[in-house]
Amino acid sequence: MLLEYCISLADVQKAQLVIKDLIHQTPVLTDSSLNILANRKLFFKCELFQKTGSFKVRGALNAVLTLCEKAKMEASNIRALVTHSSGNHGQALAFAAHLKGIPTCIVVPRTAPACKKAAIRQYHARLVECEPTDQQCRAETTAKLAAEMEALTIHSSDTPEVIAGQGTIGMELLQQVPELDAVVVPVGGGGMLAGIAIAIKALRPNVKIYGAEPQNADDCYQSKQRGQLTPNPSPPDTIADGAKLSIGPKTWPIIQDLVDDVFTVTEDEIKQATCLVWERMKLVIEPTAGLGMAVVLSERFQSLPENLKNVAVILCGGNVDLGSLSWLKNLSESSKQ
Amino acid sequence: MLLEYCISLADVQKAQLVIKDLIHQTPVLTDSSLNILANRKLFFKCELFQKTGSFKVRGALNAVLTLCEKAKMEASNIRALVTHSSGNHGQALAFAAHLKGIPTCIVVPRTAPACKKAAIRQYHARLVECEPTDQQCRAETTAKLAAEMEALTIHSSDTPEVIAGQGTIGMELLQQVPELDAVVVPVGGGGMLAGIAIAIKALRPNVKIYGAEPQNADDCYQSKQRGQLTPNPSPPDTIADGAKLSIGPKTWPIIQDLVDDVFTVTEDEIKQATCLVWERMKLVIEPTAGLGMAVVLSERFQSLPENLKNVAVILCGGNVDLGSLSWLKNLSESSKQ
Ligand SMILES: Cc1ncc(COP(=O)(O)O)c(C=O)c1O
Ligand SMILES: Cc1ncc(COP(=O)(O)O)c(C=O)c1O
Repeated sequence: MLLEYCISLADVQKAQLVIKDLIHQTPVLTDSSLNILANRKLFFKCELFQKTGSFKVRGALNAVLTLCEKAKMEASNIRALVTHSSGNHGQALAFAAHLKGIPTCIVVPRTAPACKKAAIRQYHARLVECEPTDQQCRAETTAKLAAEMEALTIHSSDTPEVIAGQGTIGMELLQQVPELDAVVVPVGGGGMLAGIAIAIKALRPNVKIYGAEPQNADDCYQSKQRGQLTPNPSPPDTIADGAKLSIGPKTWPIIQDLVDDVFTVTEDEIKQATCLVWERMKLVIEPTAGLGMAVVLSERFQSLPENLKNVAVILCGGNVDLGSLSWLKNLSESSKQ
Repeated sequence: MLLEYCISLADVQKAQLVIKDLIHQTPVLTDSSLNILANRKLFFKCELFQKTGSFKVRGALNAVLTLCEKAKMEASNIRALVTHSSGNHGQALAFAAHLKGIPTCIVVPRTAPACKKAAIRQYHARLVECEPTDQQCRAETTAKLAAEMEALTIHSSDTPEVIAGQGTIGMELLQQVPELDAVVVPVGGGGMLAGIAIAIKALRPNVKIYGAEPQNADDCYQSKQRGQLTPNPSPPDTIADGAKLSIGPKTWPIIQDLVDDVFTVTEDEIKQATCLVWERMKLVIEPTAGLGMAVVLSERFQSLPENLKNVAVILCGGNVDLGSLSWLKNLSESSKQ
């Protein structure tokens, strides 16, 4: 480990104390028919049941509460918060900021699911839409708003307090599934992956940490292959909207050292796996949360040794537009029979 | 209580022992946003997570295992089983019979959800389709098959062993929610309602037992109003396919005496409530399971006293065709905003 990381186990432990009364300790569910399909014992960490419908509230709450604490000590004040987000971080930050009465502005791609946009407004945040293909516009809009509002920008994954907050999933998993052999974590900006890796590798270094990415947004996979941070060359096109962001300068060193491997899956694999979780487990997960299930069913994962028995899969979110499920139509397992 | 009931608490307790290693003790989930909407504390009994995707497996297993036991004692044998079902009982009976290696034939309406039909076939049962509007054809087909196969007919709700099996939901609820004030139970043939009433009224007579029915299939409501068994005059048209059947001569006496009230809801209320559970709780429930939620939100239920605080709602099944969710399209809560 040549690089210094932006957080340590202690930060995750602190985050756990800071957020514990405001979040759910989400249950871990199992399903015998999916165990048979995957040929392992799967433990589904149900972050779709988390406040705001995704794990993102862990990082957002830790960031907001920690920063508020700091602002108080420095006798200064936080005037406002700004972020850009595919939707879930925006929702989570709006929720956390609303708890503390801090005005917040969220920049989202115009194509973000309507339910995510509606929830952001519901938590009284200001919503600004951007063209999904124009990353420069997004960055500029965010920076401009931050200046205008004298706001602090809280990045959805490349912020130490956010990474530490997401790491609390790892702490809970170790306690809920003591027999754990591996964890499969969907990757966007890599905040969840980095946080979980920091927590679990410090406490149980033998547990394997795997990233799960769409082939169409495989910057984390490419970065690991090349040994250097390699962002997606252009805005990716994938149904897993939470996985579009690239990993960044803060998450990459952690991922480079502590993550054992990254697996990629096709759009079809993501849709099939998402549908499988809906049908078999009766859980409304969003496609980004189907990434982990898709990975454990993939050929390359299946070739991992059998003694890698007990595998946790993070069902990271459930915010999906019920009005736009046309892609489910021809996929439904039973209609195939 | 002038009438004799076909089962007693002891039968439910026996059923609990008979089926306990073959079913899940399903979790009870809560959701603070739905509590606010309903102005009560709601406890959702998650039978959508049950083996075969609905509570029906409780009654089916108890019937099959009890009858097998009896057949052994009488040194006779069960050659085959037959039933008619909107789908979930068929699936459950096929599962239970397959465990015991008993050939089984299920008569379903042609319009039953594809996923329910597929699951029946998956458990190796023979599937025979009938016109949904023709109850006589269904009864005749079932009787003819029973004669042909020398089969025992196991009705989905008017069978003592089935009612006793469904009653185990009540036993679990009392243990999982000791502070219970009321239970809201969707009603088709009334097996679940009668079973739960027998269990709970014997052990905690102060807990209110309420039925939940579509306005379009309100035979239970009508029967209670008139004080006499009043089946649906014609095959009902409702999205809650599990609620189409009428209560029968075995469930009616129990319902007449032990059920405190029956509430009816419109098709729109059922759809809205189902959608709400999907969006807020991230649970894939079928419309019949949305009946309870629709009732607790209904005006008449809202006028019940406030000290009726802790209300269990049975989310009785999750078998829904993901390929046919067009009715969700314009309903989704978020798209309304
Ligand atoms: C549901 C869901 N899963 C996973 C991710 C990826 O998380 P991270 O950006 O921390 O890698 C996101 C990000 O938006 C998400 O919304
Ligand atoms: C999901 C579901 N809920 C409720 C019912 C009604 O149960 P009962 O016929 O015991 O009243 C059924 C019956 O098919 C069902 O499938």
